[in-house]
Amino acid sequence: MSSNIGRAFKVQIFGESHGKMVGVTIDGMPAGIPIDEEWLNAFVQRRAAKGSAIATARRESDIPRIVSGVNEKGRSTGYPITAVFENSDTHSSDYSFLPDRPRPGHADYPAITRSMGEDDLRGSGHHSGRLTLPHVFAGGVAMLLLKQIGVDIAAHILQVGNVKDAPVDPVEPDMDALHQCHTREVPALDAAVGDRMMQTILDAKARLDSVGGIVEVVAAGLPAGIGAPYFDGAEAAIAQQLFSIPAVKGVEFGAGFGCAAMPGSEYNDPYYVEDGEIRTERNAAGGLLGGISNGMPVIARCAFRPTASIAKEQQTVSLSAAAVGDDAEVTLIVHGRHDPCVAIRAVPVVEAAVAIALADLYLQG
Amino acid sequence: MSSNIGRAFKVQIFGESHGKMVGVTIDGMPAGIPIDEEWLNAFVQRRAAKGSAIATARRESDIPRIVSGVNEKGRSTGYPITAVFENSDTHSSDYSFLPDRPRPGHADYPAITRSMGEDDLRGSGHHSGRLTLPHVFAGGVAMLLLKQIGVDIAAHILQVGNVKDAPVDPVEPDMDALHQCHTREVPALDAAVGDRMMQTILDAKARLDSVGGIVEVVAAGLPAGIGAPYFDGAEAAIAQQLFSIPAVKGVEFGAGFGCAAMPGSEYNDPYYVEDGEIRTERNAAGGLLGGISNGMPVIARCAFRPTASIAKEQQTVSLSAAAVGDDAEVTLIVHGRHDPCVAIRAVPVVEAAVAIALADLYLQG
Amino acid sequence: MSSNIGRAFKVQIFGESHGKMVGVTIDGMPAGIPIDEEWLNAFVQRRAAKGSAIATARRESDIPRIVSGVNEKGRSTGYPITAVFENSDTHSSDYSFLPDRPRPGHADYPAITRSMGEDDLRGSGHHSGRLTLPHVFAGGVAMLLLKQIGVDIAAHILQVGNVKDAPVDPVEPDMDALHQCHTREVPALDAAVGDRMMQTILDAKARLDSVGGIVEVVAAGLPAGIGAPYFDGAEAAIAQQLFSIPAVKGVEFGAGFGCAAMPGSEYNDPYYVEDGEIRTERNAAGGLLGGISNGMPVIARCAFRPTASIAKEQQTVSLSAAAVGDDAEVTLIVHGRHDPCVAIRAVPVVEAAVAIALADLYLQG
Amino acid sequence: MSSNIGRAFKVQIFGESHGKMVGVTIDGMPAGIPIDEEWLNAFVQRRAAKGSAIATARRESDIPRIVSGVNEKGRSTGYPITAVFENSDTHSSDYSFLPDRPRPGHADYPAITRSMGEDDLRGSGHHSGRLTLPHVFAGGVAMLLLKQIGVDIAAHILQVGNVKDAPVDPVEPDMDALHQCHTREVPALDAAVGDRMMQTILDAKARLDSVGGIVEVVAAGLPAGIGAPYFDGAEAAIAQQLFSIPAVKGVEFGAGFGCAAMPGSEYNDPYYVEDGEIRTERNAAGGLLGGISNGMPVIARCAFRPTASIAKEQQTVSLSAAAVGDDAEVTLIVHGRHDPCVAIRAVPVVEAAVAIALADLYLQG
Repeated sequence: MSSNIGRAFKVQIFGESHGKMVGVTIDGMPAGIPIDEEWLNAFVQRRAAKGSAIATARRESDIPRIVSGVNEKGRSTGYPITAVFENSDTHSSDYSFLPDRPRPGHADYPAITRSMGEDDLRGSGHHSGRLTLPHVFAGGVAMLLLKQIGVDIAAHILQVGNVKDAPVDPVEPDMDALHQCHTREVPALDAAVGDRMMQTILDAKARLDSVGGIVEVVAAGLPAGIGAPYFDGAEAAIAQQLFSIPAVKGVEFGAGFGCAAMPGSEYNDPYYVEDGEIRTERNAAGGLLGGISNGMPVIARCAFRPTASIAKEQQTVSLSAAAVGDDAEVTLIVHGRHDPCVAIRAVPVVEAAVAIALADLYLQG
Repeated sequence: MSSNIGRAFKVQIFGESHGKMVGVTIDGMPAGIPIDEEWLNAFVQRRAAKGSAIATARRESDIPRIVSGVNEKGRSTGYPITAVFENSDTHSSDYSFLPDRPRPGHADYPAITRSMGEDDLRGSGHHSGRLTLPHVFAGGVAMLLLKQIGVDIAAHILQVGNVKDAPVDPVEPDMDALHQCHTREVPALDAAVGDRMMQTILDAKARLDSVGGIVEVVAAGLPAGIGAPYFDGAEAAIAQQLFSIPAVKGVEFGAGFGCAAMPGSEYNDPYYVEDGEIRTERNAAGGLLGGISNGMPVIARCAFRPTASIAKEQQTVSLSAAAVGDDAEVTLIVHGRHDPCVAIRAVPVVEAAVAIALADLYLQG
Repeated sequence: MSSNIGRAFKVQIFGESHGKMVGVTIDGMPAGIPIDEEWLNAFVQRRAAKGSAIATARRESDIPRIVSGVNEKGRSTGYPITAVFENSDTHSSDYSFLPDRPRPGHADYPAITRSMGEDDLRGSGHHSGRLTLPHVFAGGVAMLLLKQIGVDIAAHILQVGNVKDAPVDPVEPDMDALHQCHTREVPALDAAVGDRMMQTILDAKARLDSVGGIVEVVAAGLPAGIGAPYFDGAEAAIAQQLFSIPAVKGVEFGAGFGCAAMPGSEYNDPYYVEDGEIRTERNAAGGLLGGISNGMPVIARCAFRPTASIAKEQQTVSLSAAAVGDDAEVTLIVHGRHDPCVAIRAVPVVEAAVAIALADLYLQG
Repeated sequence: MSSNIGRAFKVQIFGESHGKMVGVTIDGMPAGIPIDEEWLNAFVQRRAAKGSAIATARRESDIPRIVSGVNEKGRSTGYPITAVFENSDTHSSDYSFLPDRPRPGHADYPAITRSMGEDDLRGSGHHSGRLTLPHVFAGGVAMLLLKQIGVDIAAHILQVGNVKDAPVDPVEPDMDALHQCHTREVPALDAAVGDRMMQTILDAKARLDSVGGIVEVVAAGLPAGIGAPYFDGAEAAIAQQLFSIPAVKGVEFGAGFGCAAMPGSEYNDPYYVEDGEIRTERNAAGGLLGGISNGMPVIARCAFRPTASIAKEQQTVSLSAAAVGDDAEVTLIVHGRHDPCVAIRAVPVVEAAVAIALADLYLQG
């Protein structure tokens, strides 16, 4: 078990939901890169619950405290960058059903099995979505590095329940539109679609239920030649990052699962030259061929399962009863404070995950 | 760039398509595990082109030569296991269009950019599907380890073009049926579907074209509690392995992308106890919750793009012409020897990839 | 560049001497191990400057704040353990000679060259001996793990200048005596020798100079069979840890450099059986044969160069003058606050380093 | 347990002494570096037993077969370089005393304990000095990389028994003299000293005994700024590599253990400028300050214990007798084929080890 990742841009997260702090150390950031703390704060805030009707009621200031790795000039020292986030607004009593009655659809049962009960499971402990906070921060630092080579990363919410936003243009994605939609409560490209997504989420909440979603992300400006075949392939690295986000259950690039039904003559993307640059016409490959960038926009989508913690009564088992062979079937109503659709607040986490993967590949050369 | 992967069960592949050998070193196999070479040979042979009308005409014996790590008793020594495969049937002249005219849809262009022309690109060099041979071997060794704890892994071809096989039962997958279908040329569960897939592939070949596909894989018998949250999550680890296979463009677990449209009350899977074992009713999560196994079958699907090398004339550019600003647009007809649907022979590679990921997580404890 | 180490017991340190915090994340500690915070505090305090005439005048409380990885029962959760230490007593003005006039014998010049001036060099930044504080903490956690299998680690100061303590008995080291000597200001086994070492250090200080030393460390109770051949050999792992401590310039095991002059018949250590245990008679190998423990006490020694920062006038160069070809030779008097003999306070750091290496090997199995 | 090392220049060795092959994969070599196979062969041959009276009688051709990673232009492809060495001249019957009667001073007993008897112990299996063959090859490849930046590495035998060669000049080492002494059977700088060392070894052999030694190595031409503080320090990295060589029991840099008795004013090395280059006067630090190169020659020494396998009768135990509580003390005479002084043939291994460590640090930037 490791809560770290990366060969060159190495990210180590730590903390439990109801512990003293969560945080992250980034080891391998080159020296001399401007660390714009104001921008980093704003990026991290995009993940925060902002009092919206569709977000958890938990309130944390979530201001990163950078404690190492940045010099007096506001640039990276080349040594580990660590940021910590104090936990304050914790309601541990909400989790009194644990560790005996695991939530369906949640990591409770396998986590308890794994650690033989030593987890600090309040608020899901180290499994909590709160750990996406240091994850996002690390992604923000990766973006500051990638900005130096002209890479711009942005995501939007593509689907909530059965409501679908328009996908980005794979050849000429409108990055401005992507960035602008982040100011909305539901960051869909089409504001009207966002409103319908909002209604879908409110409906789910009203039914004491939750709903899934899909996030689409674009990395524009990545030069050709970043990545590698096989295990360090860009698809492999980005997917490992995306599946690290709690609740992600599917990842695809470019035409993705749709490519199964395509002939090669349609999927293969003819090259041409424009203004001295080699480009392709359709970008069905999502900017990545055999693990390496081809200079076209990198396009990925990831599916989020519905929030596991719902207020509706569910069937579960009492682990203690099961252990001694007693009748173990019990019901459970989860109170706590939970977003009814985790995909919404996950949008910047998806951007962060892609940024970390690309920063690591870029630094490996 | 690294052609290795794993924290505890470490796999290092090496070789180029038209070099002297491809091979693999597995570092971290525990001592004393029976290494059934006959079974390993048979497993590796499943990946081979067997003279089928739908497979490459390249013929290699593909018998693994195990040169280290197995003792006189036929058991692992605990030290690195290395297997090598001689290359013999190479037709380098088929690749005379490289490095100047990169194939659309293929890694040629980004690979050349990445290595500044130092790749040995004949037969795609280190990018070649031939490297899936040591990958499969390593997966076979991982399976020998996992067999010790009762894990059984098998895959089938779920889709070719628009022809679809029935998905496995997520709660009670028929492992025998999965294993039995491997004797067929197209390993679909439903033999009639397999025949239609075969026809789809032959049609594509006749049109000098290729076609994509989807492979579905099951790991049954994995105990609850294997995996970890975040970066070492089972979904992340399996996905990294699956996307390492050339041509994979999408990966999903359980309900996968379908979960976006599901309410939590449907996706969440009630627990119950049967014969003293904790089980779930629907397994929408594909056996993995928050990165950790819950004791239900692990179910994943991965999408393969159509084969990039097709005999149809395609549009590409002359890199040398582009470099000096000349008119660079040229056409290309790829001869060589290529499967029209890489998904077919990829079935054991998918099994191998899942086995390596699970062996690594299992050994990490 | 990485400030992390370890394959199974992974240690990531962070912080700069004059930054906000130094700290450490330990990833890979098994779940359920008692974390005795009181003992950890006491262990970390052994490294602290205690107002002694021979220690730096810098005063920090140096109480570890454990922010993650320990559950309500006071046991490890199995997830990352992070401890942070606030920096408070910093006198940055003492370092006004940097970055232009590097101290002889110190990392200033290579560090500036390495990071092209982006280090935070006040107090030596990330190079500072202050980073041994999280290093010691991590070692304390490693000791808590090793205690579970009966390993006891203790060191003493073997030499300061030309004053030498008696080496430990390699076959039956007196662990109690080693632990007891830690209460003295100079932790020599022979108190009278310690007094002479103290005088040697005070004399050096009076001359505005510094002095080197040797620390000897014992790990008793390590079972046979821990370690591996080659790169994960115990000697390799312990040496990597010991040379990570700033100022260490030599490491040897058992008879060490003395083995060059020994015949095999004297160095080789006959086995015998005592009370059912296999033991050796002389332990010239220092408990390690070919990278693996043989059940005898592990014995290592490491040499510390004299403190580089001395108040005596020294010759150095002005890097800015050198860069433009001007006459660059200048003199330097370092004020700051520095121990005249770093080996004294390094005694618990040496113990910590050995503990981390052994914990990592032990967990790798 | 891992038989691999390195973060950027990654070396994976494999093989057992009496298995089919030993070999190595180097992952991370940049593309486009000339791979001079003739020079590599010659370098590897320096390690071979050449029919000398003081070397093992085992004869292997030891010609590396490079099977991947080198393109048609004789340059690195950037993908893994693998070299294999067939084993042929194996006399397994010489090891009939194993696994029951472990050799004193040898890894037999801890190795058997570690792997619970699954090792292939003939010829010491994976613990064998034969594994230094792929180690040397990897070092040769590292040297080809380092040559690109002007680094030159050479070692000599400094001590055998009580016979001592002159140490190199730490400020202006005579690299030509070092290279030239490699043509001698005993590579001492002073040929007469070499003759006396030879006599010492022959005397030991005549007494059915063995003798230890010390090797001194220099890396000249390394630019300032290579390395890092702490765990990736150059001293730590080089020491890990050197202690990976079987039989090494001590490592020191520059003044080494002698620094304990030195005052800082003598150890600290004044900087001056000569021909625009920053240099130091004495190089007591051995070219490394706080883990980073300062531009002066890197100087290290390592101590080799005497060969463990001697023909003299020795006391050991029968493990099977000990296991059941019987009288276990037995005697052992080792026949086999063994060098009486492993330090002699280790000279190129020491050079290789230093090269690998420096190549890894250099590539990490």
